[in-house]
Amino acid sequence: MHIALDAMGGDRGSEELVLGAIEAVNDSKLVVSLIGDKKNLESILARHHFNDPERVRVVHTTQVVGMGDSPIDAIRRKPDSSIVVAFDLLRQGKVDSVVSAGNSGATMAAAVRSLGRLPKISRPGIASAFPTLKAPVIMMDVGANVDCRPKHLLQFGVMAAAFSEVIFGVIRPRIGVLSIGEEQGKGNSLVRKTDELFRQTSLNYIGNIEGGDTFLGDVDVIVCDGFVGNVCLKISEGLAEALTGMLRDEIQKSFTAKVGYLLSRNAFSRFKKRIDYAEYGGAPLLGLNGTGIVCHGRSNATAIKNAVFVAAGLIENGLNRRIMELMAEIDLPADSGLESIESSVDRDLSVLSQQSVAESSRE
Amino acid sequence: MHIALDAMGGDRGSEELVLGAIEAVNDSKLVVSLIGDKKNLESILARHHFNDPERVRVVHTTQVVGMGDSPIDAIRRKPDSSIVVAFDLLRQGKVDSVVSAGNSGATMAAAVRSLGRLPKISRPGIASAFPTLKAPVIMMDVGANVDCRPKHLLQFGVMAAAFSEVIFGVIRPRIGVLSIGEEQGKGNSLVRKTDELFRQTSLNYIGNIEGGDTFLGDVDVIVCDGFVGNVCLKISEGLAEALTGMLRDEIQKSFTAKVGYLLSRNAFSRFKKRIDYAEYGGAPLLGLNGTGIVCHGRSNATAIKNAVFVAAGLIENGLNRRIMELMAEIDLPADSGLESIESSVDRDLSVLSQQSVAESSRE
Repeated sequence: MHIALDAMGGDRGSEELVLGAIEAVNDSKLVVSLIGDKKNLESILARHHFNDPERVRVVHTTQVVGMGDSPIDAIRRKPDSSIVVAFDLLRQGKVDSVVSAGNSGATMAAAVRSLGRLPKISRPGIASAFPTLKAPVIMMDVGANVDCRPKHLLQFGVMAAAFSEVIFGVIRPRIGVLSIGEEQGKGNSLVRKTDELFRQTSLNYIGNIEGGDTFLGDVDVIVCDGFVGNVCLKISEGLAEALTGMLRDEIQKSFTAKVGYLLSRNAFSRFKKRIDYAEYGGAPLLGLNGTGIVCHGRSNATAIKNAVFVAAGLIENGLNRRIMELMAEIDLPADSGLESIESSVDRDLSVLSQQSVAESSRE
Repeated sequence: MHIALDAMGGDRGSEELVLGAIEAVNDSKLVVSLIGDKKNLESILARHHFNDPERVRVVHTTQVVGMGDSPIDAIRRKPDSSIVVAFDLLRQGKVDSVVSAGNSGATMAAAVRSLGRLPKISRPGIASAFPTLKAPVIMMDVGANVDCRPKHLLQFGVMAAAFSEVIFGVIRPRIGVLSIGEEQGKGNSLVRKTDELFRQTSLNYIGNIEGGDTFLGDVDVIVCDGFVGNVCLKISEGLAEALTGMLRDEIQKSFTAKVGYLLSRNAFSRFKKRIDYAEYGGAPLLGLNGTGIVCHGRSNATAIKNAVFVAAGLIENGLNRRIMELMAEIDLPADSGLESIESSVDRDLSVLSQQSVAESSRE
């Protein structure tokens, strides 16, 4: 198994990414190709006394997509960027999957253009695991598609359910649609129509899920459009950080509390690990004719290692085969009216930008 | 100043609500009317040795709207329910504002029907204060309007800014639109069009705000549709609870940590107070020809007391006058095309239900 790692992405610089690759090959039988500036990457490897060029390889590229670059522009104008080259290697069958902590919009755009979509999937998307009081819950989409139709949400449910089966071993994952109020009929028009679609399938659909139930762990897959999902992801990260900051503030106000904090420090660090999104190994791009993982820009070496493992796991456990099986099972009655509208709606496949990836993938 | 309190709403029963009323009148010069079952309310007052019938009055009603009742149905079928009677008293000028911890959809519906909307306001909504590392931020709408147009979001911004000025004393509140990505042009179509509208006004508009920035306190008002806002509210509450639970789990795993927890317990309780939504005194209904406050169903006596104070503060400080001033200031060029669509869109004013409050208010 051979994973390509975009070694130019992420906020912490290439060293952290290289360390993640080294940790990954040391803890497994995987091979990792670092895609990026060869001279720099080799000097980092040398500095860390790593000398197994069969296990960690380097593929030289000359361009870099910045975090602020417009995704579609970037992949068009930078054909020799690490992220574009990584997905080209995957299309050519030279690697099995791709991991990137760079510009996630550009990663999605490069993936769609190089790999194309799985049959019957209208919109690839990004899934993300949220920590809960029980097992993690998968939310999809968390940012690739901001204006969605009910059919897209249905497909997100199928893809995320396959992911939940393949990576977390969940049997017949419970799928809910994110809404306000649990009763059927509550929510906006997108949610209400999506609910109707899910009820026609044999999926383990449990109805509307309220935002507050996300962290209880009583559902395995939460479906929403990419705008709502991204807001949920960001607000959860922001709140977890703010709460930690508020608690630290309070503790610093008194000496007794500080002593208390020192005594309970191990509990705090285990707690932090539990709420750390990095532990979950990035967010998979689902619905592509291939697989890829986007990581948080701030990912440390451990997060990168975990993402490499998840990337390998998706391949080993046949994620895409399972997605196609589930798509065949639900096989809703053909709705040619919907299909014809579909193509015109494709233009707002926005992948974190205003411009269409679908459009660019057709070029 | 005289506040009507729906004494039949809330998850904790009437006793907690009555205690909140007693606390409120003891700490201020306010008068509170308890609306509900007279016999029961008077026996609670007697049990707590409260005997100042001028300060806490009782208005007898015979019906109760349940938490699960459909808002529109409930206010139609239960004309003698505490929540309907409370807003009727307000319309008749017998009280100055209303506080309810009951069914928030029904509260909004009763308010819209009794009071009607402020001039130029298309959609009344619910604002909610979020705790941040600095001052609280106001998010609007958090649940009254699930399918919105750009113009509605603009009005939410105006109303929430007036609230921020009047209650938190903020001068020229910074207004942001909740989106994914801070750059102009990021987001879904609703957000992009709303951004264009705000840029035409003289409001202190700072552009897109990401979910993660909500808790930094660098913005005073966050504007979103009621679906997204309600999801944010619920997911934040759920996460705050889940994190507290996870931290408790971790602390219980070791004796040292337990000792540490005991030593830092005061810091923990101050922290809990800081993240407790109850401290903020409920969520105001804005855009009505009058004012009302909805409280969390789980509100305790302190939360009720704070809500009564906020209700009084909105009147004393002329919230609605300020909303109308700001609306006159922005005075966007008339768009008759938009206006004519408006009336047909009104039907999806859903106030946490599928049915239209506007429709019911026209009867």
